[in-house]
Amino acid sequence: MNFSRTTMNSSRTTRFSTRLALAEALAAVKAPDRAAMELAQKRLDSLTKPQGSLGVLEDLAVKLAGISGDPFFKVKKKAVVVMAGDHGVVEEGVSAFPQEVTVQMVANFINGGAAINVLSRHVGARVNVVDVGVAGDLASLGDPDSSGDQEGWKENREVSQGNQHIWRRRVRPGTANMVKGPAMTRAEAVAALEVGIEVVSTLVSQGFNLFATGEMGIGNTTPSSAILAVLGQISPEEAAGRGTGLDQAGIARKAEVIRRALEVNSPDPDDAIDVLSKVGGLEIAGLAGCIIGAAANRVPIVIDGFISTAAALIASRIEPETLDYMIASHVSEEQAHQKMLEIVGLEPMLRMRMRLGEGTGAALAMNIVEAATKIIAEMATFESAGVSNQG
Amino acid sequence: MNFSRTTMNSSRTTRFSTRLALAEALAAVKAPDRAAMELAQKRLDSLTKPQGSLGVLEDLAVKLAGISGDPFFKVKKKAVVVMAGDHGVVEEGVSAFPQEVTVQMVANFINGGAAINVLSRHVGARVNVVDVGVAGDLASLGDPDSSGDQEGWKENREVSQGNQHIWRRRVRPGTANMVKGPAMTRAEAVAALEVGIEVVSTLVSQGFNLFATGEMGIGNTTPSSAILAVLGQISPEEAAGRGTGLDQAGIARKAEVIRRALEVNSPDPDDAIDVLSKVGGLEIAGLAGCIIGAAANRVPIVIDGFISTAAALIASRIEPETLDYMIASHVSEEQAHQKMLEIVGLEPMLRMRMRLGEGTGAALAMNIVEAATKIIAEMATFESAGVSNQG
Repeated sequence: MNFSRTTMNSSRTTRFSTRLALAEALAAVKAPDRAAMELAQKRLDSLTKPQGSLGVLEDLAVKLAGISGDPFFKVKKKAVVVMAGDHGVVEEGVSAFPQEVTVQMVANFINGGAAINVLSRHVGARVNVVDVGVAGDLASLGDPDSSGDQEGWKENREVSQGNQHIWRRRVRPGTANMVKGPAMTRAEAVAALEVGIEVVSTLVSQGFNLFATGEMGIGNTTPSSAILAVLGQISPEEAAGRGTGLDQAGIARKAEVIRRALEVNSPDPDDAIDVLSKVGGLEIAGLAGCIIGAAANRVPIVIDGFISTAAALIASRIEPETLDYMIASHVSEEQAHQKMLEIVGLEPMLRMRMRLGEGTGAALAMNIVEAATKIIAEMATFESAGVSNQG
Repeated sequence: MNFSRTTMNSSRTTRFSTRLALAEALAAVKAPDRAAMELAQKRLDSLTKPQGSLGVLEDLAVKLAGISGDPFFKVKKKAVVVMAGDHGVVEEGVSAFPQEVTVQMVANFINGGAAINVLSRHVGARVNVVDVGVAGDLASLGDPDSSGDQEGWKENREVSQGNQHIWRRRVRPGTANMVKGPAMTRAEAVAALEVGIEVVSTLVSQGFNLFATGEMGIGNTTPSSAILAVLGQISPEEAAGRGTGLDQAGIARKAEVIRRALEVNSPDPDDAIDVLSKVGGLEIAGLAGCIIGAAANRVPIVIDGFISTAAALIASRIEPETLDYMIASHVSEEQAHQKMLEIVGLEPMLRMRMRLGEGTGAALAMNIVEAATKIIAEMATFESAGVSNQG
């Protein structure tokens, strides 16, 4: 581990005022503002371009109007939220990397050296690293006050370093092995959802108004595929993919693990929180909470890759109106991602064969979302520019 | 027309030293630097991510190393080059907009109100508007010294306004109607190619090292489809599409116009300049020249949509090694664009249903290209971050 503890700048404000219970947040989710969307569409149609010719950029401008109620929505501050959690199911050999990498990568995030740090700086976003369920040694997370034991993490704290803000919100140190029983209790799933709601609500109160989802958790494509299999009603074989580096035999083993987990737990496809707790993950729950929190606060949230889309699927089944607050970023190399996006009802902008997670695709897309806000605000109209409209 | 002539800031430096003849530029195009590419790949494989997991971002970093000879290539200044030209073939009713829109939109570019202006400002790129073959009234291009007659444009001049730089390089006022004979002479096609080479070479001498192609020219999907039909050896029906707004009958008419133009001119598929002069366009030639100029100067150039890709197809057939200097941006709504990209050998990053041209997709992609340069330069290695590599 190579991070410097001496440069840490500790801050411990706990903001209970912005911590919404799940039920309260869900009650706050409303339909988008149709009047603002109509105003945005009318404005777009007056600009010097064939109508609709900017495709997704125009759709984004209309969507942002509906989310915010403002046809000229402006991005103020951008936040990437990286939820980190571990998975008991790694015992079954479903990942190409050892579990210790989760905590090592969280340290890398804190020190600004990971891909998501580079891309977040590039697009001007702050990185929020949330330990909602890491299993590893606390000291390695770079907290100078850590005693090195698990117990210290029961106290919620926050730490800032550079462009990173670290949230200690560990609900439990990793999930249980879902092949042997539920990954977590329903209460733990709700607690992790509420961590996401709290993080986004707090950031909104600080002026952040564009969010992106990211995650870290060795083994987390397995619960994501399990969620897809249940909620998308497809087979484990169709839902399982390569993850960060499995070969064909590894993918077959992963599908078999998912099949056993579904048999053991019998998750109820009509109860997304049941699915989340039995075959999901703490970081997936945290991200679903971020999405619900974004919708409750009427701010847009950009969805990253396969794991983030599993969280989007959960959120959309808990409350379908959250979909109106989500923006898809990319379709990844994970083979079932395109199908999962279609099931949720999201259209990705980027196709870059990425398969890293962390929020890397979503961070890139934040720049495009911001471009859409400038198109509607800054382009000349046919009238103002003296350009002849379509004959 | 609503632009202010009084705010124009005229500059008239003509830089003959950077004006390369076509033959000279082609002789300067070399293979990419394989040693730098290997160094870049080695570096990427040492960074804290599964190997190859950043997909196209990693491919871009390797490509930029090959282009520049520097594994840590940095973007200094970005330039979008928008070539403008008119098309005699609009007489045949192949466009939903009247020809006057070309000159009106060039004025809009000069005044900073078009989509490409907004997106270029967003990504920090300067907009270069090049009149290589507009047919319309000169005064409307906003030159305060213009006498309003066509003759004035025989003198090469440049004008700056805001984030825009305007190049007067009109080879001829629009092409001839290709249904009745060649669109232009071979000498005119070469002159337009050399305009592109000159513009890029001049900008490189000023420190610009990332380029994007854009265009404006009412009717220019028709010559682009004609080029695709000849060089891609597909039928006019397969090559023709909706353009900025044709209906099915309009598309059928366009395919018939292309068929007649090919019959009348018999372009030689083994001679790309013959194809360019007989069924191409002045702005398409200018963009092919930009690509050749970028390759000759060893700088990357991002290719926009359908018309820009037709120019890329021309450039790649004039000199196949130019392909190593091109970066694809998006696949547009124009139905044959995906096929054309495949024929050239380019993989687009963005799928946003855009169909405007101007360089709008390429401008968005410039931000992603720059992100790739930061990934290789700024990410931590497995060793420096103390992260365990794949088991």
